[in-house]
Amino acid sequence: MAKKQMKSNTSDGATTTKGPALKRGKKGGDATEKIVRMADQIVKFAKGGVDPYLEIPIRALSNVSFDPKRRIIEMGDAKQTRNFFSLGQAKKFMQSMLIAKFCNELALAGKTASIRQAYYSSKHTIAGTSEKTFNDQSESDPIIEDLEVALDSLREELHIYASNRGALVGPLVFVDSGDTIDASRLGSGGYSIPSIVEPEVIQFKKCDAKFVLHVEKDTVWRRFVEDKFAVKHKCILIHGGGQPPRGVRRLLNRFHQELKLPVYCLLDNDPWGYYIYSVVKQGSINLAYESKRMAVPDAKFLGVSSFDYERCGLTDDVKIALDKTDISRAKQIIKYPWFKDKKHWIKEVEKMLRNGFKMEVEAMISKHLTYLTEEYLPMKLKDKKQWLD
Amino acid sequence: MAKKQMKSNTSDGATTTKGPALKRGKKGGDATEKIVRMADQIVKFAKGGVDPYLEIPIRALSNVSFDPKRRIIEMGDAKQTRNFFSLGQAKKFMQSMLIAKFCNELALAGKTASIRQAYYSSKHTIAGTSEKTFNDQSESDPIIEDLEVALDSLREELHIYASNRGALVGPLVFVDSGDTIDASRLGSGGYSIPSIVEPEVIQFKKCDAKFVLHVEKDTVWRRFVEDKFAVKHKCILIHGGGQPPRGVRRLLNRFHQELKLPVYCLLDNDPWGYYIYSVVKQGSINLAYESKRMAVPDAKFLGVSSFDYERCGLTDDVKIALDKTDISRAKQIIKYPWFKDKKHWIKEVEKMLRNGFKMEVEAMISKHLTYLTEEYLPMKLKDKKQWLD
Repeated sequence: MAKKQMKSNTSDGATTTKGPALKRGKKGGDATEKIVRMADQIVKFAKGGVDPYLEIPIRALSNVSFDPKRRIIEMGDAKQTRNFFSLGQAKKFMQSMLIAKFCNELALAGKTASIRQAYYSSKHTIAGTSEKTFNDQSESDPIIEDLEVALDSLREELHIYASNRGALVGPLVFVDSGDTIDASRLGSGGYSIPSIVEPEVIQFKKCDAKFVLHVEKDTVWRRFVEDKFAVKHKCILIHGGGQPPRGVRRLLNRFHQELKLPVYCLLDNDPWGYYIYSVVKQGSINLAYESKRMAVPDAKFLGVSSFDYERCGLTDDVKIALDKTDISRAKQIIKYPWFKDKKHWIKEVEKMLRNGFKMEVEAMISKHLTYLTEEYLPMKLKDKKQWLD
Repeated sequence: MAKKQMKSNTSDGATTTKGPALKRGKKGGDATEKIVRMADQIVKFAKGGVDPYLEIPIRALSNVSFDPKRRIIEMGDAKQTRNFFSLGQAKKFMQSMLIAKFCNELALAGKTASIRQAYYSSKHTIAGTSEKTFNDQSESDPIIEDLEVALDSLREELHIYASNRGALVGPLVFVDSGDTIDASRLGSGGYSIPSIVEPEVIQFKKCDAKFVLHVEKDTVWRRFVEDKFAVKHKCILIHGGGQPPRGVRRLLNRFHQELKLPVYCLLDNDPWGYYIYSVVKQGSINLAYESKRMAVPDAKFLGVSSFDYERCGLTDDVKIALDKTDISRAKQIIKYPWFKDKKHWIKEVEKMLRNGFKMEVEAMISKHLTYLTEEYLPMKLKDKKQWLD
């Protein structure tokens, strides 16, 4: 419960830290140092009679590309300059300073805040005017993203959190904010995954898992928990309640990088399922700057595949007709640079289009209740030829 | 993790049970007995040459009322008859039998399933036709609700689960499916609340909490966790990710009934916040038949109140203008039978209308980051006159 004083090593071999979670030493951590450096430079500019400015990497499709070697979606080098003495940029410049100041205060206090809390904290009336620093959260959210890229820090490192969604169970012992948690002893509920899962907050202590199974929905996850899949197959069972939130993606990345666990995805057989896999594997276009610390390029797609209808002898009880949006999204997906050279993916998506229907993971239940956990997934785990990479 | 064999007493003094969670003895529990009794009667009718029928209490506004004595929204006595030999009712009759059969199978196997899994499991082509037993989940969901009312059993007792959403921390030790969980030692993530929290699954073991604080959103919840509110004030801190799902509502009810803990709500100052409070307190119109086991008539509304703007000296940074929907919903709310005789509630809602703005819990942060947890809520807890009942 809550954050406790920590006296433990981080699992990646970092040095011993004291004080509240996410607070590193007196200065509040790497991100704070970067904020202070940025602020110092701006003060120097101002004192030297130079128009203060920030350099912010451009977050737009034009500055995003797929790196085939690292197999992630990455941001390019294009940058924009945000000047203080510019009628069009002065407000955003001021907003950037306010958010940076707030993040620095959070770090020094060893606290974190939601993006909404960042908005409310940084909003005020500018003295002598009726002008607000921020009119709406839609103004502060992009500023947070600007700072992430400008400082090359994840939002979580700036002490800002997103919603916490998703849960996990499995043979893993870890420390969260000083509390030791055995994820194999959490009943039917599991561990609720917070938004900030950085090594300063969560340290892995003991892991007997052989792999990670990421399922799309909480209801499927419960099926696996109830059928003791994680115990029988020694795996970490995790869901993100649909499109996995940042905390879940970052944990998947850490499980893979630090614990060397393979990550397997079980998603619906529809364009949305393909898209979730794509985001888990190589990151998203919108948040390309996060890929290196969130993506898992080695993740495998175990199912549900368009070929499973015949492979598993399913009946038309499982069919859900594709609609127009599905068809156009599927056609987009096979044109993604990271799919377009992969014959097996093109076959997979084309088969779905030929089928004319999509299938949900839960549809496998139509065979019998435990078919999914006791036959389907064990078959998939055994036969690597069925995997999509 | 997963369900384990249980050898423990339930906290409400029920007898020792063995076997998987939710399975009571050989017959699979009370709900199963009711299903079997219903089935026996139908067979008896059929054998006796009588048109088999089911009696199903009517789930409609016409059959719902507020019981001012029990202070919950309750279903009336009106019933409909669902006959087998009726062109208009035969399909629904058949569907009711299929779902009842599925629930019985679940109970006997000691398993549970989602409403979607119930749909897929009960869907098949009727032999010799191209007709499906169910065309869509929108056909099976109301049948599940029919069975709940016909058998006077909660969905959870029929072994059907909804989505699991929400989390908790606090000075509470409980057993979930055989695993002992100390909710005061769950780090920053907390315990992910499952959909089924019946005494057969979750038994309370030790509680040092003095009250339960139910907050609306996960991001607010995290603010409280981080600021160690649950430790300082000895409370169970729980959120339902917006409108609380069934698992969270049932747990609130159990905390109140079994552990005798007062339940306090901290919700946004808007019609949606009032509505959430209303549902937690006296149940909902749509699911009136659940009120008696889900509602907490003694729950108190601690904030955010329309009077807090002046009371707390807030600035216009916190104001969000009411829109047309807000205004019409607010006017509806003061006409609810359970609000309309309460002067303080009418004052509260009318004040919001006069204010012309709504306020979020997170807006309190605009004072300073820990204002909410270290000043606002302690002030509310101290001064009962500020509570709304």
